[in-house]
Amino acid sequence: MAERSALRVGLLGAGQLGRMLALAGYPLDVRCLLLDPTADSPGSHVAEQIVAEYTDPAALARLAECDVVSYEFENVPASAAAWLAERVPVYPPPAALEVARDRLHEKTRFRDLGIPTARFKSAESAQELEHALSELGVPALIKTRTLGYDGKGQLLLRDAPNAQAIWGRFRGVPLIVEEYVAFQRELSLIAVRSTRGDVAFYPLVQNEHRDGILHLSQAPAPNTEGGLQHTAEDYASRLLASLDYAGVLALELFEVNGALLANEMAPRVHNSGHWTIEGAEVSQFENHLRAILGLPLGSTAARGYPAMLNLIGNLPDRERVLAVPGAHLHLYGKAARAGRKLGHVTLSCNTAEQRCERVDALLRMLSP
Amino acid sequence: MAERSALRVGLLGAGQLGRMLALAGYPLDVRCLLLDPTADSPGSHVAEQIVAEYTDPAALARLAECDVVSYEFENVPASAAAWLAERVPVYPPPAALEVARDRLHEKTRFRDLGIPTARFKSAESAQELEHALSELGVPALIKTRTLGYDGKGQLLLRDAPNAQAIWGRFRGVPLIVEEYVAFQRELSLIAVRSTRGDVAFYPLVQNEHRDGILHLSQAPAPNTEGGLQHTAEDYASRLLASLDYAGVLALELFEVNGALLANEMAPRVHNSGHWTIEGAEVSQFENHLRAILGLPLGSTAARGYPAMLNLIGNLPDRERVLAVPGAHLHLYGKAARAGRKLGHVTLSCNTAEQRCERVDALLRMLSP
Repeated sequence: MAERSALRVGLLGAGQLGRMLALAGYPLDVRCLLLDPTADSPGSHVAEQIVAEYTDPAALARLAECDVVSYEFENVPASAAAWLAERVPVYPPPAALEVARDRLHEKTRFRDLGIPTARFKSAESAQELEHALSELGVPALIKTRTLGYDGKGQLLLRDAPNAQAIWGRFRGVPLIVEEYVAFQRELSLIAVRSTRGDVAFYPLVQNEHRDGILHLSQAPAPNTEGGLQHTAEDYASRLLASLDYAGVLALELFEVNGALLANEMAPRVHNSGHWTIEGAEVSQFENHLRAILGLPLGSTAARGYPAMLNLIGNLPDRERVLAVPGAHLHLYGKAARAGRKLGHVTLSCNTAEQRCERVDALLRMLSP
Repeated sequence: MAERSALRVGLLGAGQLGRMLALAGYPLDVRCLLLDPTADSPGSHVAEQIVAEYTDPAALARLAECDVVSYEFENVPASAAAWLAERVPVYPPPAALEVARDRLHEKTRFRDLGIPTARFKSAESAQELEHALSELGVPALIKTRTLGYDGKGQLLLRDAPNAQAIWGRFRGVPLIVEEYVAFQRELSLIAVRSTRGDVAFYPLVQNEHRDGILHLSQAPAPNTEGGLQHTAEDYASRLLASLDYAGVLALELFEVNGALLANEMAPRVHNSGHWTIEGAEVSQFENHLRAILGLPLGSTAARGYPAMLNLIGNLPDRERVLAVPGAHLHLYGKAARAGRKLGHVTLSCNTAEQRCERVDALLRMLSP
């Protein structure tokens, strides 16, 4: 038995995900050391932060002294991930970063693993873009291959395409063109695999967006038990195994006429899993830490019928939120700014009907 | 709407209770500033700690800049509490400290409020001790009026008393003598009252001790719904009202032939409420913060049939604990030492039978 038992996890990124990972670590005596170039970050209020660039040698050397290194975003500089991976276990594996940060690699990986997606084409020139659009037709989605998130870096093209103009608008960066799919709803699966190879899945989440940003998640998603849950777990299992993955992986899916199409994956804890803090037996944050540290995974079972609402742009009044029955408030310690994720509310509910009522009550309360 | 919304809570004490209060604060964007003379305390790993005596003027001045001040132990120096209370709201009210830190005041308060207790007598001299023992008979409990906890500072006298020798053994400090009650079990009620006067109660907890230290808590305590729960809430309500209380109050009770006798109160979050982190809708730590900040209280309902085991003296193996179904680990970041509370495990259980099985499994696992 150790005299003292603290484990150290180095984390690239000190936003709200790093903050919630650090908070989940303390009860296990797991201490996170955060690296982020932005001072006074959400994570810095709850854990030690090194304020430096992600490629700063001295900062990376300090992370390399930890027991394991992880990250809260997929755009970790490849050089930093590679340097660290030579010195300390890095989970999820850097190979997952390479897949996730390029939409073409991601969709190609899905296809190679037999995971259905919308039809897609690469476009590295105006000519290729024109060709892709003529093959896939309109409406079509045009996306930058890298650096897009929360609906940024993409365009829904509804009518006759002018490939040359679009190519110019995207400033000549490599693109992916996707068939536009009229899906019935967006679902996500939060999966977790440990370094020991143990795998667990949370119940499917139903997600609704506003202005391209996640607004409302509900889990378990209605009418997904059995068929859809099983299919989603099958798809995620293929990804986890193919990447020799450790940590939480989020898989975004479209439901189309009873089938599932994979849209994208995130090799990290995910906004659509924030409901798990109170809404599941063990949260995605704790399970991510358990997974990368080789500890037994905790139960992913939902507690009743939870929902999660993002708090975007405006800080709500604590009193009014906490007066909603079943409401759990999570603020990230950020200053208010339009379009910014400032926090979320988890609603604990005993029945699906109660969830409808409480979501409505909270939405009314939050609307200006 | 505020640009940024952090609230500051000053806390006297940075042990495991301060640590768990600080962790409960972050999701509400409530930041705790801890004062404790011991460096590298459990709280210091998760929040800013001022390392200074509790009476240090500069340290107290910093606490007085917070929105509200609270504490994690009842032996706060009266001068510090008084100085702070002139400058910043201090909750629970210092009057509760005065009652709780002196067993004679405490029992007298219970009696004055019509809350049943074992018979008791004050003893401020060997003569008074002899008189008290002759009146109450043996077996009797002799306790120092102040500074006792976890079974320290008390003596169970089973046979013919030698008052003079006992008086000497206690070095002449004021004593309280209590009739020894052969109780069937120890229960505790975790109550909470907000500065707005809202009151809530967790389900009664059944507690078992080893070597005078809390070992196992189970909630809701078997066979307490209705009668005993109602009676305990009635007693706690009288205390809360009489002290114009805000925060969590723990009331320890003995069950004797279907009746309840009050043993002692703690004006703070309490070890027998640690199960509430995963085992209740909202934990005692979050509800304490909500209460002293005047926010709406959260639900105190139990989730299923939780149990809590203290980890005392030895640090357990994380892997083995987390492999027990339903086990949630809470380590305090302390070095191992005989008799020291190093952490606790909460067990989440769906039925009372499952709780029995899981408690047994964990006890077997933890026994050397």
